[in-house]
Amino acid sequence: MKFGGTSVGNVDRIRNVARRCLATQAAGHDVVVIVSAMAGETNRLLGLAHEFGEIPDAREMDALAATGEQVTSALTAMAIHQLGGQARSLLGHQVRVVTDSAFTKARIRTIDGSRITEVNKQGAIAVVAGFQGVDDAGNITTLGRGGSDTSAVAIAAAIGADVCEIFTDVDGVYTTDPNVCPLARKINKISYEEMLELASLGAKVLQIRSVEIAMKYGVPVHVRSSFSDAEGTLVTSEDKLDRDMERLVVAGVAYDKNEAKVTLREVQDTPGVVARIFGALADKNISVDMIIQNVSSGAATDVTFTVAKADLPRAKALIAEIGPAVGMKDFVVDDSIVKVSIVGVGMRSHAGIAAKMFSLLAGEGINIQAISTSEIKVSCIVAAKYTELAVRALHTGFGLDRKDVHEEPAT
Amino acid sequence: MKFGGTSVGNVDRIRNVARRCLATQAAGHDVVVIVSAMAGETNRLLGLAHEFGEIPDAREMDALAATGEQVTSALTAMAIHQLGGQARSLLGHQVRVVTDSAFTKARIRTIDGSRITEVNKQGAIAVVAGFQGVDDAGNITTLGRGGSDTSAVAIAAAIGADVCEIFTDVDGVYTTDPNVCPLARKINKISYEEMLELASLGAKVLQIRSVEIAMKYGVPVHVRSSFSDAEGTLVTSEDKLDRDMERLVVAGVAYDKNEAKVTLREVQDTPGVVARIFGALADKNISVDMIIQNVSSGAATDVTFTVAKADLPRAKALIAEIGPAVGMKDFVVDDSIVKVSIVGVGMRSHAGIAAKMFSLLAGEGINIQAISTSEIKVSCIVAAKYTELAVRALHTGFGLDRKDVHEEPAT
Repeated sequence: MKFGGTSVGNVDRIRNVARRCLATQAAGHDVVVIVSAMAGETNRLLGLAHEFGEIPDAREMDALAATGEQVTSALTAMAIHQLGGQARSLLGHQVRVVTDSAFTKARIRTIDGSRITEVNKQGAIAVVAGFQGVDDAGNITTLGRGGSDTSAVAIAAAIGADVCEIFTDVDGVYTTDPNVCPLARKINKISYEEMLELASLGAKVLQIRSVEIAMKYGVPVHVRSSFSDAEGTLVTSEDKLDRDMERLVVAGVAYDKNEAKVTLREVQDTPGVVARIFGALADKNISVDMIIQNVSSGAATDVTFTVAKADLPRAKALIAEIGPAVGMKDFVVDDSIVKVSIVGVGMRSHAGIAAKMFSLLAGEGINIQAISTSEIKVSCIVAAKYTELAVRALHTGFGLDRKDVHEEPAT
Repeated sequence: MKFGGTSVGNVDRIRNVARRCLATQAAGHDVVVIVSAMAGETNRLLGLAHEFGEIPDAREMDALAATGEQVTSALTAMAIHQLGGQARSLLGHQVRVVTDSAFTKARIRTIDGSRITEVNKQGAIAVVAGFQGVDDAGNITTLGRGGSDTSAVAIAAAIGADVCEIFTDVDGVYTTDPNVCPLARKINKISYEEMLELASLGAKVLQIRSVEIAMKYGVPVHVRSSFSDAEGTLVTSEDKLDRDMERLVVAGVAYDKNEAKVTLREVQDTPGVVARIFGALADKNISVDMIIQNVSSGAATDVTFTVAKADLPRAKALIAEIGPAVGMKDFVVDDSIVKVSIVGVGMRSHAGIAAKMFSLLAGEGINIQAISTSEIKVSCIVAAKYTELAVRALHTGFGLDRKDVHEEPAT
């Protein structure tokens, strides 16, 4: 059972978490709880750190940030005691969650589940501080923002848990963002692959790495609300989906406004030039998402690509620097774009899904600026102003709208 | 170098600590800093804990409270980095400060100094989180309030430090409380034994256990101000004092208002009765300080003793319970008393010091209600209203007044 920062945001909510853990235990389960820092605490600590420079020492950042989860784990154990239960808090170095030494973004190497199992055997609830680990030298490390999801899934894998429940402030994974599309439905079951694509495409409900680990070790992940007992969304393997494959070729529609489009005009069309441009971007750690190169009509060609908006200033500086060497005439930036995507494992066995997407967008008069596809996903770049229109058109067109609303007579 | 909560109470003060550490390093020393939680932080954490019951689980209290020092140690290391220095924070379990498992009041068993020495060898300052340790099972423990002094002295002993500097918000140990006696002087050097008596008698500048450890391992302790470069007070072995023994038989005058006096009237004067009373008090963990039994004038006698005011309610309940069995007529409590004490190793070789104390008090018309002595201390219980009068009379009478003021003509 993993509870995020909002779910442990104050003393009453921690009490609520304790109650929920005890109810699960009373139902006959061994319970391990993974907790995040109380909402606001990590930012308070980072604020203190930034008083000592823009980029404080990464090792010390981790020693500092790890206290947030340590506080919550101790308080949660106390809350369980107060309700008459047994509990023991465990920190990253006590469990042991062994990571590499990449401070502030460490990756888990091994987890020893025996200390947790031992606590459970004594009839107690193990309350594990999420987000943190320890490297081989005994230094405290953290897994980066949202790392508590990763902790939870990795610990579930290590102890062979029946399920990893991720409690959050939404009640599950939706077919698309309900704020954009009021007809969005909660998904009952979704495959790891689809969840991974949705997480990569901007759905924030689960951290990408946690889904990767769940998929690798086959951990069923149940995403559900901290504030209700309703069933949420089960993330599981494709063969366990009991989905009506006919209707649900597409599982969800995602959108991401965090990209910008860069077009280099009249670049020299000779071998090695494109490699030079993207090599230089890679050297600066600037991730390029989509690339479009038009068919050349002579000695020069236009090259278009998209990058994260956060990387745009660095990308622009780099292009300005290397542009002359590749014969570039000039370059144009467009940050009023959105990437809309459809995701679904059913695409593998259904031809024509991409074509249907293009036609649905065309039907709304939306021009497609770039396309990328994978086995279970199609993404299109369109003008940002079409975001809501495009999402709703795809959601309805692929049969994802809520039935209860959908089938009511129009009012 | 140990800095208490006030000395690291905010970001600017932490910067000041970093500056001071770097200056000491620049002067050619290997530097180890022990830090407390930022002033107010421990109380904030305890406040959170008490939301989950009056007596939260002790193990979890320690996991919680230890975060206070963890935060300060990381921030102090960052501050040193920002000023261009090298530093590494070390927690109790990283150093390893191994303690017993008496959570919230653990005692240090062993300290491995090698990790600290290693940091120093790399030219870096080791920033150790005070107050905390780890037991054999890997649980986090704390040493109790003021435990950072104990951490500092014990670590100094473990690494064979030349000196343990305790930085605090006063500039040293005084001959008596300057708030009570404006003529109090800062003591340049004081022996471990004297410091131990003064600490036991209510002087709050050093924790008793830290002085015991310093004495046991011969660690020179320099108590000084965080806010000035002035020399403070060196606590050292008796043979290193270069004191004018004639003048300074008495090193300091202490007072303690935290005791109350209990008199049991007309207790049965037969063997075993007194043992029964004090045995019962000891069983309840109530420490008795002084005991006075008057010479018996028949079958009954009065028995008087002092206890800490905090223990008084429990002591009264116990006396009421066992009183009838020892034939007690009734009992009287007086909590308007003060214990004034003189301390000095010179007493060993000077007769008549106690007599001089009694005569100084008598000269002010102060009645002595009880007396206790040790080799280097004489304590008297007097009415609380005489506190200031008694302290000043003893301070002047034993030649402790500041000369600069003392020798000025009266204005």
